[in-house]
Amino acid sequence: MIRHSTALSGLDKGFLLFESPETPMHVAALLSFSIEKLQTREGGLDFQRIRDLVETRLDDIPRYRQRLVHRPLSDEPVWMDAEGFDLDYHVRHTALPQPGNRTALNELVGRVIEQPLDRKRPLWEMWLIEGLEDGEFALLFKVHHCMVDGASGMHLLFSLFSLCADEKVEFGSHWSARPRRSRLTLLAEELDEQASRSAELASLVAGAVRHPQQAMRQVRRSIHDIGQAVGGALMPHTHSPLNAPLGRHRRIERVSLSLNSVKAIGSATQTTVNDVLLAVVAGGLRGFIKGNGYPDEGLALRVCLPVDCRPPDDDFQRANCVSALFADLPVDEPDPLTCLLSIRNQTDKLKKSGAAHGTELLVEMNNLMGADWMTRLGRRLAMGLSPFNLVVTNVRGPSVPLYLLGAKLQTIVPFVPLMQNQGLGVAVASYCDRVDLGLSADRDQIPNLPDLARSMLDSHLALQAAVLQPPG
Amino acid sequence: MIRHSTALSGLDKGFLLFESPETPMHVAALLSFSIEKLQTREGGLDFQRIRDLVETRLDDIPRYRQRLVHRPLSDEPVWMDAEGFDLDYHVRHTALPQPGNRTALNELVGRVIEQPLDRKRPLWEMWLIEGLEDGEFALLFKVHHCMVDGASGMHLLFSLFSLCADEKVEFGSHWSARPRRSRLTLLAEELDEQASRSAELASLVAGAVRHPQQAMRQVRRSIHDIGQAVGGALMPHTHSPLNAPLGRHRRIERVSLSLNSVKAIGSATQTTVNDVLLAVVAGGLRGFIKGNGYPDEGLALRVCLPVDCRPPDDDFQRANCVSALFADLPVDEPDPLTCLLSIRNQTDKLKKSGAAHGTELLVEMNNLMGADWMTRLGRRLAMGLSPFNLVVTNVRGPSVPLYLLGAKLQTIVPFVPLMQNQGLGVAVASYCDRVDLGLSADRDQIPNLPDLARSMLDSHLALQAAVLQPPG
Repeated sequence: MIRHSTALSGLDKGFLLFESPETPMHVAALLSFSIEKLQTREGGLDFQRIRDLVETRLDDIPRYRQRLVHRPLSDEPVWMDAEGFDLDYHVRHTALPQPGNRTALNELVGRVIEQPLDRKRPLWEMWLIEGLEDGEFALLFKVHHCMVDGASGMHLLFSLFSLCADEKVEFGSHWSARPRRSRLTLLAEELDEQASRSAELASLVAGAVRHPQQAMRQVRRSIHDIGQAVGGALMPHTHSPLNAPLGRHRRIERVSLSLNSVKAIGSATQTTVNDVLLAVVAGGLRGFIKGNGYPDEGLALRVCLPVDCRPPDDDFQRANCVSALFADLPVDEPDPLTCLLSIRNQTDKLKKSGAAHGTELLVEMNNLMGADWMTRLGRRLAMGLSPFNLVVTNVRGPSVPLYLLGAKLQTIVPFVPLMQNQGLGVAVASYCDRVDLGLSADRDQIPNLPDLARSMLDSHLALQAAVLQPPG
Repeated sequence: MIRHSTALSGLDKGFLLFESPETPMHVAALLSFSIEKLQTREGGLDFQRIRDLVETRLDDIPRYRQRLVHRPLSDEPVWMDAEGFDLDYHVRHTALPQPGNRTALNELVGRVIEQPLDRKRPLWEMWLIEGLEDGEFALLFKVHHCMVDGASGMHLLFSLFSLCADEKVEFGSHWSARPRRSRLTLLAEELDEQASRSAELASLVAGAVRHPQQAMRQVRRSIHDIGQAVGGALMPHTHSPLNAPLGRHRRIERVSLSLNSVKAIGSATQTTVNDVLLAVVAGGLRGFIKGNGYPDEGLALRVCLPVDCRPPDDDFQRANCVSALFADLPVDEPDPLTCLLSIRNQTDKLKKSGAAHGTELLVEMNNLMGADWMTRLGRRLAMGLSPFNLVVTNVRGPSVPLYLLGAKLQTIVPFVPLMQNQGLGVAVASYCDRVDLGLSADRDQIPNLPDLARSMLDSHLALQAAVLQPPG
């Protein structure tokens, strides 16, 4: 049976459920490039060439020409080809007012990422922004979290890029929407899928009957891991100045660090790059919270740390393949090194406890059952119980220079969506010798986001001073 | 009793009820200026000066620093000062990609006007757009229809302008939000207002008891006028290619005509400027509909023509003071002159019938009763019965040049919001020697809106040729 629709996994659907006008659920990335190779004679950006490249590359990633349609029986969303796909809706050209500085860029990006994607169309937008100072242009990419996670989002964006500055591209697209199917076809596909899911469950049960001891060992281990994962999520978080109900508007900032410096701090303290970045965030939050006159005494902020669960050879067919760990940032700790070591102790313990494996199992179970009980649980947690104060997510970026039609990629700054009651989110990506933190924040909750960005830079310097230049 | 809240009229509230993500209910105007007097040394726009002027002028129009709050008993919306008013949210700076042509401007304006205003904030946005070709910059103004109609919207915008190029402005604002009142204060105000409305009704009734014959004459006349108005609205409209359910996205175009030519056509045919513009729209729609292969045989499109009901010395305290007429555009009429005369016959008859007075009475009655039965009726009409095919509204603009901090205003193009199932709306404004039609359209229903704009220009030329140069 050739399928015309593709079902979403339970986790993918979760991001549709989480979405509201106050909490649009797309991820985003802001990339900057040297304009030189893509400059028009008038000094603008050769938008048309980039648009044509996107059109060409979309042939390899059909999801970007599909939209959500609801199934007849269960009303569940599935992906289907979007007839009348309108590329010019998705790929947009805009500019910064002169002199095109960082402040103007941040304002534009905040305004664009606060707008939810249109559910009636393929769930992505790409904004090409000219008029940046220093001879650069920018690309802002928005894509719904039900369609990609950090890793698969990067993967698809990178299909536009080349490893060399003078790649020859054969432009042209051969796509056409598969003919629209009746509701009856959708119904047939839905019934067929229910049948195969039942068969899969049946074979699992049969396996357990044949090898009861092995099955029990697996179940025991899984129950332990799930306990670790849910336990972390269920502990109520601290009240903090970052956790009020959200409005519909956003601010963004970028914090750019030297990857070598972060790595050197890690080597000197036997911590990971991730640990060091969490310590930078913790110190930055400490300075910011104190600077705004909030009490920091005893303040620890629970962070949710998404973990990429893809095997190294993954083909990125699954949109979301993440699990999560939870750790407490000791924001009341004045000594940067003590703060870093406290974070390392926690992440070490979490890795050994199998907690990440536990959340992953929850996700797998959810997919298999075809139900959304976990996403409903997750939603209640996020809305009511607020199991964490903020998300800090780390996306590994490329370590070698990339080119878009010859234009050199200069920086990658990622952004996470904010969940209900989470005024701040931090996403991190490395590229060549830099590591960039993208801060996304509620416009009214954190009006002075630039102060927080500066405080994170200070935090990095303090950590560097404490670790790399010991007194004496 | 000093009131801290201001109630909305029934008609004002109607525009809140009509609003949905597919039908944002703000009016908009796009103005262009010579940049010369407001250019920075880098060649950009002196945004800060304009922002400061807006801040200064807002002191005279407090509504622009108020937001909607809901009353304790009835849940009705009222205006209250917005604490923490954030001007930088409302006044925005952006730019066009090079070369800054009309197409790029239209795209930007379409993207901005399709976004609903945030109900939690004062209901307006002002976008300053630099990078236009020909040494111009643009100002795009969005304001909710519950706050202004065409006439009062223009009135407030004009508070920024001066009649001379070298006006001295004293910058500075002395505004602060009145202290927030408890729910109890709101409740007291609500009860007080109910009492005074009852008293007003009681005095009307008492008057009728004292002068029964005079009262009956008034009632008879009113019932006749209301009959004319409702009769026009209740006749079902023709099915047309312009009336499918709306999506969330918009296109806009501008059609610019010589006011002298329009006036000359009017004089030669003893028709009004309004009649001539309706004939231009009818002929333009005819060409467009035929060009797209739709049958035009017998096609007449019912237009809703809002009528400004303000007395000449009105102080613009009321947000909406409009009534409406309904007329049929004979889109199947090939002869432009016959089309124009058919329109004149209809508008003449409507003026004599008192139909506009009838809709106005409905509105007044609605305000007095404090109920929203009329807006609910109106909503049902607009949603279900679709009493007309499109709105064509004419806002009289200034006839002398205006200046914004010395920068000469070049053009005014207004835009109406689209109601459910109305793929096209036309707003008209005159300024000095031009009259500009702003077309707003659903992005998917009318993908070739530029063709419609061209067809309207052709229609004007054909009318001009038919009337002013009769075959010798």
